[in-house]
Order: sequence, then C-alpha cells, then structure tokens
Amino acid sequence: MTVTVVVGNPKPASRTLVAATLLAEKLTGRAPGTGADHTIDLVELGPGLLGWGDEAVGKAIRTVQESSLVVFASPTFKATYTGLLKLFLDQFAGGTGLRDVVSVPLMLGAGPAHALAPELTLKPVLSELGGTCALPGLYLLDSAYADGPQLDAYAERWAPVVRALTETASR
Amino acid sequence: MTVTVVVGNPKPASRTLVAATLLAEKLTGRAPGTGADHTIDLVELGPGLLGWGDEAVGKAIRTVQESSLVVFASPTFKATYTGLLKLFLDQFAGGTGLRDVVSVPLMLGAGPAHALAPELTLKPVLSELGGTCALPGLYLLDSAYADGPQLDAYAERWAPVVRALTETASR
Amino acid sequence: MTVTVVVGNPKPASRTLVAATLLAEKLTGRAPGTGADHTIDLVELGPGLLGWGDEAVGKAIRTVQESSLVVFASPTFKATYTGLLKLFLDQFAGGTGLRDVVSVPLMLGAGPAHALAPELTLKPVLSELGGTCALPGLYLLDSAYADGPQLDAYAERWAPVVRALTETASR
Amino acid sequence: MTVTVVVGNPKPASRTLVAATLLAEKLTGRAPGTGADHTIDLVELGPGLLGWGDEAVGKAIRTVQESSLVVFASPTFKATYTGLLKLFLDQFAGGTGLRDVVSVPLMLGAGPAHALAPELTLKPVLSELGGTCALPGLYLLDSAYADGPQLDAYAERWAPVVRALTETASR
Repeated sequence: MTVTVVVGNPKPASRTLVAATLLAEKLTGRAPGTGADHTIDLVELGPGLLGWGDEAVGKAIRTVQESSLVVFASPTFKATYTGLLKLFLDQFAGGTGLRDVVSVPLMLGAGPAHALAPELTLKPVLSELGGTCALPGLYLLDSAYADGPQLDAYAERWAPVVRALTETASR
Repeated sequence: MTVTVVVGNPKPASRTLVAATLLAEKLTGRAPGTGADHTIDLVELGPGLLGWGDEAVGKAIRTVQESSLVVFASPTFKATYTGLLKLFLDQFAGGTGLRDVVSVPLMLGAGPAHALAPELTLKPVLSELGGTCALPGLYLLDSAYADGPQLDAYAERWAPVVRALTETASR
Repeated sequence: MTVTVVVGNPKPASRTLVAATLLAEKLTGRAPGTGADHTIDLVELGPGLLGWGDEAVGKAIRTVQESSLVVFASPTFKATYTGLLKLFLDQFAGGTGLRDVVSVPLMLGAGPAHALAPELTLKPVLSELGGTCALPGLYLLDSAYADGPQLDAYAERWAPVVRALTETASR
Repeated sequence: MTVTVVVGNPKPASRTLVAATLLAEKLTGRAPGTGADHTIDLVELGPGLLGWGDEAVGKAIRTVQESSLVVFASPTFKATYTGLLKLFLDQFAGGTGLRDVVSVPLMLGAGPAHALAPELTLKPVLSELGGTCALPGLYLLDSAYADGPQLDAYAERWAPVVRALTETASR
C-alpha cells in the first residue's frame, strides 16, 4: 500500500507536515518514524502551481493518484484550507482525479473554533475529485496535536476502515 | 447484510422513498423489486419525533443502528434536507449514533441548482453521528430519478466500496 | 421597528430563548429587559409544525414576515440547527419567505468545536429564504452567553448595520 | 463610493472579470461601460501571492480595504472558488480584513450543478474576514451570464441594500 501526505502550509517542514505524517503512520500501522512513502510539501513546488503543465507538479499529481491512502493536510486560514492546497487540488480532474484514493482531510488550527472546517470545507473538495472520503475530517490544535489523545483515538477508530478499503483495492 | 432506507418526506410513500429503495437495491446487488429489509417512512412516526422516548421512534433508531447500510433520503427543502429528517437524526447520539453504519446521503430536488446539498449539508450530519460516509452525496431530479443514467452510474461506481466496507464488518 | 425572536429549542423557555432576547435587545438598543416585540418558542406550536396549514403556525409565519429584525436561535444538535427550527423554516416560501427581514443566525452549544455551525449551516437557510443576512452567524457557549464579552462585542459591532438596513426599510 | 472587482481566474481578462464588472455596475447604478473604479485581476500578481510582503499584493489589499463595495469573482473549480482567489484572501487579517466592505460573492460555472457554491463556500470566507456580506452568493452560467435575466434580477433586488449600507458608511 502506497501512502502519501500532501501538505498545504506556506511554511516548509511545518507542524502540519509532522502531524500528517504521524496520522498516516498510525492509520496504516507503520512503525513509528517510518512515515509516509511520499511527502509532498506543496510550498516547494512554488510558482509551478500557478499555471498548468509544470513538470514537478505533474509528478506530484501522479504520486497522489498512484497512492492507496493520502492525507491532505492544511493549516486553517480564514476558517478553511489554504489557497496553496487549493491551487494543487485545482490541478486534478473533477470527478475522477482522486478515484480509488482513500483521501483523509486533516487541518490544524490555533484554537478550537474552526473544528468543523475539515469536515465542511476540505472534505467536500476531495469528494468532488472522486476520492474515497470514508473518514471524517480531523481537526487538531497545532499546539497539542502530538501529545493529545485525539490523533490516536481517531487513528484507532478508523484504521479498520482504511484496511477494508485498501485491502480490496488493487494497489 | 441488513439494509434500511430512511425517508424524510412529509408526504408518505413519496418518490423519495421509491428512489431510496432503488438505490439500496442497486448498491447491494439485490434483485429488482426486493428493496430494503426495512423502510422507515418518517412521516408515519408523527408527533413522537417532537420529543424523546417515543416507543416507535426508539424501534426505528435501533433498526438503523443494526443495519449495515442505510440510505438517508430527503426531498430538498430550502436548499437542504427537511426538518422532518433532522428531527429523526437529532434522536441519535453524537459521534456514535451511526457507528459502523455505511450511511448514504440521497436528496431529490425539482431542479439542478441544489445539487451540492447532499454533499455539503446532509453528509456532514451523518458524519457527525459517526456513520461511515464513504460515498458522496447523491442528488437526483425528482422528475427523472428512475430513468436517468445517474442513479445507475452512481451505484455501479460505489457498490465495490459498499461491499468492501460491509464484508469486513460483523453484521 | 418590529423585532422578533424565533427559538428552535425542544425545551421551552430555554437559555437559547434568553440569549436570543438579549441579542435582539442589544442589537436594537432597547432598554435591558424590554426584549423583543414577539417571541416565538417553536416547541409551543407542537405537531402543527409537522404539516401545512396550521393556524398558529400561520400566525407565527406572518409575525416573522412583518418584522424588521428576527433573531433565529437554536441549540446545536449534531453540529447544526435543530430539526424543530428547520420544520418551521420549511414553512416559508423559498427565495421570498424572509424578504426584507434582517435575519440573524444565533446558535448556542456546549463546547467551542461547533462554532462555525451558524455561519456554515444556519445562515445559508435564512439566505435561501431571501432574508437579508448581513450579520455573521453568532455562536455562544451555553454556559457563558450572558456574562461573556462575545455577545456584547457582536452587538456593538453590528448594530450600525442593523440600523442602516432597518431605517431605510418601510416597516 | 469606491467600487472594486477582484477576479480569481487563472486566465487573464476572463469572462469572470466581465461578469464581475457588469455586476458592480448594475448594483451601484453606474452608466453601462463605466465599470468599477479598480479591477484586480489576481493572475497578474503572480508568484507574489505565494508569500507575504509583496508590494503589488499589498497595494491590491489596500485598494480592497478602501472600497465601499467589492465584488469577489471566481470561476468554479472543484465545486468551489479557485486556489488563486483563496491565495489572495489568505493575505487579509481574520475578522477585520474586510471590515466595512460590502463584499459580494460571485461565481461562474459551466453547468447549474454547483449553483450553491458561492453561498456555501465563498461567502463564509468573506464573512470570516469581517466583510459585510449582506447579499446572497450569486452563481451564473459562464455561457449565459450577460444575456440571461439572472444578473439583472439580482442587481435590481439587492441594489437598495447596497445603497443603505454604503450611504451610511463614511467612505
């Protein structure tokens, strides 16, 4: 099973990236610290995201499409995902771009008030791209994602669903 | 596998009910006309839905919770699900009320303008109740649900996901 | 200026009602304790809300439509407004039912996690009914609505907008 | 009254821009062809949008903040606004960035299925930035925006509200 994390934080190597990697690990039962097979830190793609046909962007898209599980992670900007993440998602084909990819929406925020954002704003975009969005949106406080119980509880609750969906797929 | 349809149309025996039954049939590969194991036409529960502890409502809740797959179907009122359907959903426990139930959001409408409603408004409620909402919201024109290609295409696309999720479950 | 509060709490005389009244007062600069001109506690309408044509329901609708400002208030059930409130809103005509009514969405909840609900779920319904929804959705903790600074800050910020909209209207 | 249109189409000089200009004109009663005082075609800002502190971006932000009315216009990508538009909105301060700006959400799309997107996805972002979002989201078919009756009907319906809100403001 190929596992990828996509990170839409304008700051490279962010806590968003760390949290997404941790989540991918726990959802798939990998050894701690082994992370995801691929990490796409979108800020590194730079201005190539503003147009169409950029080579590095194309490679990132294919990596996502060949994955069984992808965690799409974003900090919370203006009560929703970042423009940076949306730029990347805009590159996929509507309805089919994430077909057969178990797509997990993750957002980090400074306070609890935006906790509904991954479910109500990010997940619908992944769903529009045809992803298999079987897991609820997860929202974590950026000050407490690693040592709070929330990430673990979520991973434990939903790992069997990830397993059911990825075992039957061909990848 | 126990299959149930829940119908939130204030008119009994509505097209909403027929479409939901057809969808349940096609998603699970049942013979045409065999329908769902249980049909809960919420309008029949009447004023019992306005309070807590009604016996018939309690039975309906248990039926839903013991099902592997439930189609939650509503006509589109004011660009979202009906108050009648929400009254019933309000009776479930947050976070766990639909645990391990593959919960499919279906809405019928008079025109195409509200097509995003099941994905953006009904699915999040089912997700909040802990349902496994792996399928995108489906919106059908109430004048064309039965003979249009949309219901069939949706069922064909998502039946394997239903199968993967229900085969591994214990019910 | 006629001011009304509509309360969708299944419990009569709830904190939701008290908070809505307080908000109406502060938004319009009325003397403390003078409240709204009309209070519609929906639970009192009972089963009449389940069908169409009930006399008391019809009167409540007219009261709303003849108001300049209406606070629509609900506790948070399943991360959104109650079925009880939606039953009432279902009775209005789409697009025109709340025409020229400054419609304010207010929700109370037990914790901060659902703070986006009034903006993302209740306000769109009021907007679909044609209401003038110029104010953002307000979410208050039900344990702290009265003595927290949030209600006051909101009222102070938006009272001039209410004034601008209601002074130019004919009511 | 200073009027601005902000256009989030990756293609410069798009139909989105033309529709937004037409809407600004009709909402404010300007002579046909006189358009807006400022047009911000975001694609021209380029990579400056990917970071913080770019001079041209800063100027665009100030233009928006000094306007009485701003039409925020986007084509529909993946059932919501573009990443390009969100990049720009991410530059504003949460809660206050659009304070006292009457902010109008406009989206163009190829078909009717995404008609709820401006109301459910774009308007909440403008509201989060503190804008006065008194008008409902407007969705137009990109093939018919200019000669269809929808833009005119919307402008006629909401021009009085724009007037009430901008006459009382100081700008």
